Amino acid sequence: MTFKTDIEIARAASKRPIQDIGAAIGIGADDLLPYGHDKAKVSQSFIDGVQDRPTGKLILVTAINPTPAGEGKTTTTVGLGDGLNAIGKKAMVCIREASLGPNFGMKGGAAGGGYAQIVPMEEMNLHFTGDFHAITSAHSLLSAMIDNHIYWGNELEIDTRRVVWRRVVDMNDRALRQITASLGGVSNGFPRETGFDITVASEVMACLCLATDLGDLERRLGDMIVAYRRDRSPVYCRDIKADGAMTVLLKDAMQPNLVQTLENNPAFVHGGPFANIAHGCNSVIATTTALKLADYVVTEAGFGADLGAEKFMNIKCRKAGLAPDCVVLVATVRAMKMNGGVAKADLGAENVDAVKAGCANLGRHIGNLKSFGVPVVVAINHFTGDSEAEVAAVQEFVAGQGSEAIVCKHWAEGSKGTEALAARVAEIADAGQANFAPLYPDEMPLFQKIETIAKRIYHADEVLADKKIRDQLKAWEADGYGHLPVCMAKTQYSFTTDPERRGAPTGHSVPVREVRLSAGAGFVVVICGEIMTMPGLPRVPSAESIRLNDAGEVEGLF
Amino acid sequence: MTFKTDIEIARAASKRPIQDIGAAIGIGADDLLPYGHDKAKVSQSFIDGVQDRPTGKLILVTAINPTPAGEGKTTTTVGLGDGLNAIGKKAMVCIREASLGPNFGMKGGAAGGGYAQIVPMEEMNLHFTGDFHAITSAHSLLSAMIDNHIYWGNELEIDTRRVVWRRVVDMNDRALRQITASLGGVSNGFPRETGFDITVASEVMACLCLATDLGDLERRLGDMIVAYRRDRSPVYCRDIKADGAMTVLLKDAMQPNLVQTLENNPAFVHGGPFANIAHGCNSVIATTTALKLADYVVTEAGFGADLGAEKFMNIKCRKAGLAPDCVVLVATVRAMKMNGGVAKADLGAENVDAVKAGCANLGRHIGNLKSFGVPVVVAINHFTGDSEAEVAAVQEFVAGQGSEAIVCKHWAEGSKGTEALAARVAEIADAGQANFAPLYPDEMPLFQKIETIAKRIYHADEVLADKKIRDQLKAWEADGYGHLPVCMAKTQYSFTTDPERRGAPTGHSVPVREVRLSAGAGFVVVICGEIMTMPGLPRVPSAESIRLNDAGEVEGLF
Repeated sequence: MTFKTDIEIARAASKRPIQDIGAAIGIGADDLLPYGHDKAKVSQSFIDGVQDRPTGKLILVTAINPTPAGEGKTTTTVGLGDGLNAIGKKAMVCIREASLGPNFGMKGGAAGGGYAQIVPMEEMNLHFTGDFHAITSAHSLLSAMIDNHIYWGNELEIDTRRVVWRRVVDMNDRALRQITASLGGVSNGFPRETGFDITVASEVMACLCLATDLGDLERRLGDMIVAYRRDRSPVYCRDIKADGAMTVLLKDAMQPNLVQTLENNPAFVHGGPFANIAHGCNSVIATTTALKLADYVVTEAGFGADLGAEKFMNIKCRKAGLAPDCVVLVATVRAMKMNGGVAKADLGAENVDAVKAGCANLGRHIGNLKSFGVPVVVAINHFTGDSEAEVAAVQEFVAGQGSEAIVCKHWAEGSKGTEALAARVAEIADAGQANFAPLYPDEMPLFQKIETIAKRIYHADEVLADKKIRDQLKAWEADGYGHLPVCMAKTQYSFTTDPERRGAPTGHSVPVREVRLSAGAGFVVVICGEIMTMPGLPRVPSAESIRLNDAGEVEGLF
Repeated sequence: MTFKTDIEIARAASKRPIQDIGAAIGIGADDLLPYGHDKAKVSQSFIDGVQDRPTGKLILVTAINPTPAGEGKTTTTVGLGDGLNAIGKKAMVCIREASLGPNFGMKGGAAGGGYAQIVPMEEMNLHFTGDFHAITSAHSLLSAMIDNHIYWGNELEIDTRRVVWRRVVDMNDRALRQITASLGGVSNGFPRETGFDITVASEVMACLCLATDLGDLERRLGDMIVAYRRDRSPVYCRDIKADGAMTVLLKDAMQPNLVQTLENNPAFVHGGPFANIAHGCNSVIATTTALKLADYVVTEAGFGADLGAEKFMNIKCRKAGLAPDCVVLVATVRAMKMNGGVAKADLGAENVDAVKAGCANLGRHIGNLKSFGVPVVVAINHFTGDSEAEVAAVQEFVAGQGSEAIVCKHWAEGSKGTEALAARVAEIADAGQANFAPLYPDEMPLFQKIETIAKRIYHADEVLADKKIRDQLKAWEADGYGHLPVCMAKTQYSFTTDPERRGAPTGHSVPVREVRLSAGAGFVVVICGEIMTMPGLPRVPSAESIRLNDAGEVEGLF
């Protein structure tokens, strides 16, 4: 048996015109702004017009802590969406957009895999509909206006040592991480240290993904803190008067992008905030709009459930008034084996004992997710090498946790491979069992919010933070930011801050290195460990082999 | 009588679906890649399919040296296109795209004005179809790959003091003109000085605008020189292996953008290289494609005729094998008056003597343009305050030069106001009077090319260049670049290098400050005077008043 690659499958897709995809969910051609023949933005007026409709069921797809064996979270999200449609339900998928820059370092990511993909794959890994370019432009405009304000007399009395607004570019460019700008004499301004992050790390991205409409976006942009004065009082984007023009630059980027799965089912692919210093979910406007167009909306969160699902619940759902009806937790037999101590090279051999031993990580995620009051189903993303005994071991373990694990073969079979999962998920969602509540109330003090996540999600003993950090949190509370949720930036590979510690560790501490206020996005970022906001390119970047072939197809991107 | 503003007129336009515009020139809906409902890219396969068709007539619109009174070159280009269609000719307009960044400094430029405009105006001044973003991305990828190459061991032995490839951003950001990058320690690379230009100054832009197809684009990108070694040997983009991936990033940007005039006639708006350090014309692919779709193609060149038309003839036409059939030289009574010594505040009063005195500038441009072997018609872009006697004075002067001047009222009347000009231009073009030849042959030595332009176009006595510059030109000749045309970077306001010297000066010298090799674009840039490649924002940037109004319209951009 030979397998086709993801790109071969994607290229062979029989895509339908995007107007047909829109029509199937009630969006007329006039309300679709096409970008080519296979992608379109949904008009703001259409979105305004559906607000009074009933709301569909929301299904979150999340995963265990990632291992080098892979889990297939996006693949399962897409497969479940197709599966729901296959069993006669009206379902949509909502996922994040890909960042352009990293695709030129490592090979680009497909949106899904095998026979559970979203297309057009190449364009989604290149410029797509230009949203990230618009975010880069809006961010760059504010950057330029801050230095321009200082240049022309600095009426706002910005302390040039305390400009916290960095620049961004959607490219992996380590040379720009730390720079000295405004060199070259009087006409170029006042020299100061600054640097660039990658665009997905921009607070503009986080604002766009949490905004409910353009008015809310403008307010959030205005609320962003860009610098401090010598007396430590903040200078806002609004003071620089950049918020209006930035909103103009973002007016199209705010509209969700409609594309399709390989099975011609509708999907919104919109927004892509970093999953560490931001909340790592697709946009609120895409999710809330999809819930008005479909009976079931399947969405996902970045990283493993300890980071991604936690932020989805405590930040996105809290802020947008969303409540998930069911959570699907993706696991693989291979990942259980790695958690059970098997090396990647030995994953091919059956090892039921290792699978059993590795289930601890899965078990803890099940318990954590249930603590949000939402029913959990485990999806076993099936690999051809998985033995029946190994699969049975996972299912038995999950049953012991009061949940159930369903085998999914969407990678090889498309929607046929997820019909069982889809039926069960629909049943659970329809039953209205969920009783969602975020983990902590808005009123809880900031440091206590961090402790709550550390103890109840990471199962740590304590949070370590020196006085300076705790004083900073108290100062923000005094300034009126105490009601914000916290956004944890931590390794995705472990419940602890040590990426090597797999399984379900206990007895560890969570050291907080730094805290940052994202006043526009509306959260306090809590940094635990090294967080890279500007990646570099590898020794041999994938860009070296990316080219157009004679047929005009993109080679080397995947 | 009250006048509507450009934006009021543009908003009131009754646009037709872009598929209808395409159909009128034989482009089927499948060959149009729509961006919303009013703009589209033309597919590469369609362009490939029209190459054997007969070629239409090419009409260049250029102007006298600009004065603060304004000339209306783009307005006349659009008006003439509409006028030709109005008299029953099949005509298209080809103009450049606007750069995003500068619109947030000074108010954005319309594409045309009054009743001779191209729409959609807002989007053409914002992201449009993303071409400039794609150019920024491609440029940024090469920038990152150069520093990445140095970081991982510098196998090519690049002299880090001699990296000539700067970075770009489409924003007016003076703080980035000169920076020190790669600071912060070992993991961020080797510190070195560099800086940012605005995107339109990128050699990638010049390559895209001169490339005949994607293969030619990839070759040109590969040919770009990015750095030198200690032995002064060049390192090419091809050596960095970025050319393939850059071409992938530019594959959509290479396709011309179809939009429409207020009178629903087709226009390509594509490409936008700087008119000083590059050649300042819309893309070759747009112009050559338009010539296969229409019987008459009206296009324009940047700045006044001494710079814009000269480069159009000597660079674009030479490289693309184009030959203009007629040149339209735009002048205004007001500009003649300013050339005749009248201050801007006094332009309202009739002053026939000043008009006559100011005609010298116009006369020299007529003579220069004729020296390319192409018939010249003067278009007097009419302003409401122009008196009959003033207009007659210009007409009489032009007749004395063996040419003719036709009054145009497209700003107020649309195509009705240019029917006379259109009829005459079509007559001249159809008569086949043109006998076009560039000003100098490829084989002429580089310095002599500069002298030829300085003496025959600027009417200077001499070119001043120190030995270092002349040696550099000789070195490039030895390296095989002697056949390239030269691209003059000089003030647009005068035939001399002094922007204050209006009229038709003689006896001046042209000092060459610097020469640069654009080996991919295929020209040698000759810098005469201060040339700014990264503009700054003014004290009160227009961005401060740009916002979305309650109707969702963009306010403050115009």
